[in-house]
Amino acid sequence: MPQSAKRVVLVSRPVGEPKASNFRVEDYAVPAPGEGQVLLRTIWLSLDPYMRGRMSDGPSYAAPVPIGGVMEGGTVSEVIGSINPGFARGDIVQSRAGWQSHALSDGKGLTKIDPKLGPVSAAVGVLGMPGMTAYTGLLDIGKPQPGETVVVAAASGAVGSAVGQIAKIKGARAVGIAGGKDKCDYVKKELGFDDCLDHRDPNLAGKLKDACPKGIDVYFENVGGAVFEAVFPLLNTFARVPVCGLIAHYNDTEATAPKWPATMMRAVLTKRLTIRGFIVSDFAARHADFLRDMSQWVREGKVKHREFITEGLDSAPAAFMGLLKGANFGKQLVRVGPDKA
Amino acid sequence: MPQSAKRVVLVSRPVGEPKASNFRVEDYAVPAPGEGQVLLRTIWLSLDPYMRGRMSDGPSYAAPVPIGGVMEGGTVSEVIGSINPGFARGDIVQSRAGWQSHALSDGKGLTKIDPKLGPVSAAVGVLGMPGMTAYTGLLDIGKPQPGETVVVAAASGAVGSAVGQIAKIKGARAVGIAGGKDKCDYVKKELGFDDCLDHRDPNLAGKLKDACPKGIDVYFENVGGAVFEAVFPLLNTFARVPVCGLIAHYNDTEATAPKWPATMMRAVLTKRLTIRGFIVSDFAARHADFLRDMSQWVREGKVKHREFITEGLDSAPAAFMGLLKGANFGKQLVRVGPDKA
Repeated sequence: MPQSAKRVVLVSRPVGEPKASNFRVEDYAVPAPGEGQVLLRTIWLSLDPYMRGRMSDGPSYAAPVPIGGVMEGGTVSEVIGSINPGFARGDIVQSRAGWQSHALSDGKGLTKIDPKLGPVSAAVGVLGMPGMTAYTGLLDIGKPQPGETVVVAAASGAVGSAVGQIAKIKGARAVGIAGGKDKCDYVKKELGFDDCLDHRDPNLAGKLKDACPKGIDVYFENVGGAVFEAVFPLLNTFARVPVCGLIAHYNDTEATAPKWPATMMRAVLTKRLTIRGFIVSDFAARHADFLRDMSQWVREGKVKHREFITEGLDSAPAAFMGLLKGANFGKQLVRVGPDKA
Repeated sequence: MPQSAKRVVLVSRPVGEPKASNFRVEDYAVPAPGEGQVLLRTIWLSLDPYMRGRMSDGPSYAAPVPIGGVMEGGTVSEVIGSINPGFARGDIVQSRAGWQSHALSDGKGLTKIDPKLGPVSAAVGVLGMPGMTAYTGLLDIGKPQPGETVVVAAASGAVGSAVGQIAKIKGARAVGIAGGKDKCDYVKKELGFDDCLDHRDPNLAGKLKDACPKGIDVYFENVGGAVFEAVFPLLNTFARVPVCGLIAHYNDTEATAPKWPATMMRAVLTKRLTIRGFIVSDFAARHADFLRDMSQWVREGKVKHREFITEGLDSAPAAFMGLLKGANFGKQLVRVGPDKA
């Protein structure tokens, strides 16, 4: 009798905030690999805000998860069966196996991870997609110069924490925004940001102005909403705004999304702002640079990272709903299985 | 008794649309040049939308015209007196003498124009600030590629007409938007745009979609408003939006300006748009390239231009108010004095 596996499928598309009823945890039989295939067992599932976009079928840069389909996601997985000469049992790989305990792969898109280099979970964190999102968006679009001021929200999270620390490495002033005193303390004391403000502060705009006495030169946009409104008037002439996410708006519906931006466009014009959207795959050519720099910075302790772990695949839907509200404190991971089978 | 001169001063700052009462035409005595100075007589005064910004004292990239001060503007002027070894009587120069018939200058910022090369008025049109705005914004920010689609509004005007014609030179499809059939016919038949739509058409969005079957890769933004709203959904992934003007919004007041752009920012993100404001002086280093290319294109007939002339400095306020409503058909000029004194 085959071993039992578990997966989370999308039952219905959320309107506004995702609910538990949009997901279903299913049991299924662990499949057997065919010729050329490997069987993967998930160790770590990465939960990331972009997944909210995949739950909707509006126009986006990627196709949505179909109804009844397994939720997409990056994983760190162990090869537990292989009929593929490129992979052996026991190999640890980075994969896009999704929200499930086991998956088959033809080997394409799998990247081997050397467990001797450090915790393998970093491959979906600081040394993976979130780290590279921070690296390319900040360096290739934001282009911070020494003495400039860089602001980033979700500053204790996977992307924001790297953005601020890289800004510091480049000689800029880093100001974070995060939810609550504990996160702000961590961002300042552990990560070395120059300042960090609580986005729940009713006087966020005033505090931000005080924290950025020379204005803002780079705003790494990953949240939108009230943070964007506080940041926007402080942008300096020739400021750059790499746009990587808008988590405050992912649950907007047609009816609630504010729409037409004349005031913003006037500032774009008079301040000669650059606002540029990107996703990390646009900078695929920079992957070797990223890995070289970031792994060195992590080794040297210049870039620290923090993980926020929930246990078991069953916890994924609630953890993801929490992530959209900032309930996590650090890179959100789900431990789907043990490090070694 | 000194000869009488005329100037237009700003009497009050407009709220919304400028009115005749915001301006006053004054007589004054023609001044005499001092040591190192030249006396200029205005031949052509260029009227341009940016002047609306100078009438207000909100934050912008340039200081406003003070109340009681002469309205700013570029001119083509004749040197009619000189105690400056760099200039002789009869020289034709480009200047920023403003809305007045005579002005003193210390020679700084004056550029001599060779009348043998063509009509001197081009120095404030296709070979001047408007032409260079089109050239740098389109080529340095818009970067149109062969086969791409470029859209520009105010397509019969000084900037828009050059944008579309340069787009054609670069192998792109050029779609203009203009006010009324006559302008659209001119844009298509004379300027060689692939298509031109009337912005008053109640079905502008639908017509634009038909005119851009492969979407829009570059939108040269000089108007905002309903045109922007029609364009925005058609922008392709990786589209570029150089923002040079927002004439539809120059008369907005705090109360009427729509504000917050979540829908727009979502498109910036998912389509990886680049929206970048600029003013022509940001690209001062490109002036020689511009003059070389544009004068050649004008000589070869690849870039045509059209002037819309009103007579006498007294006509400037009404002509300017008309310009903001699209009453002009071509580059708006005021003939302040004869070609040769």
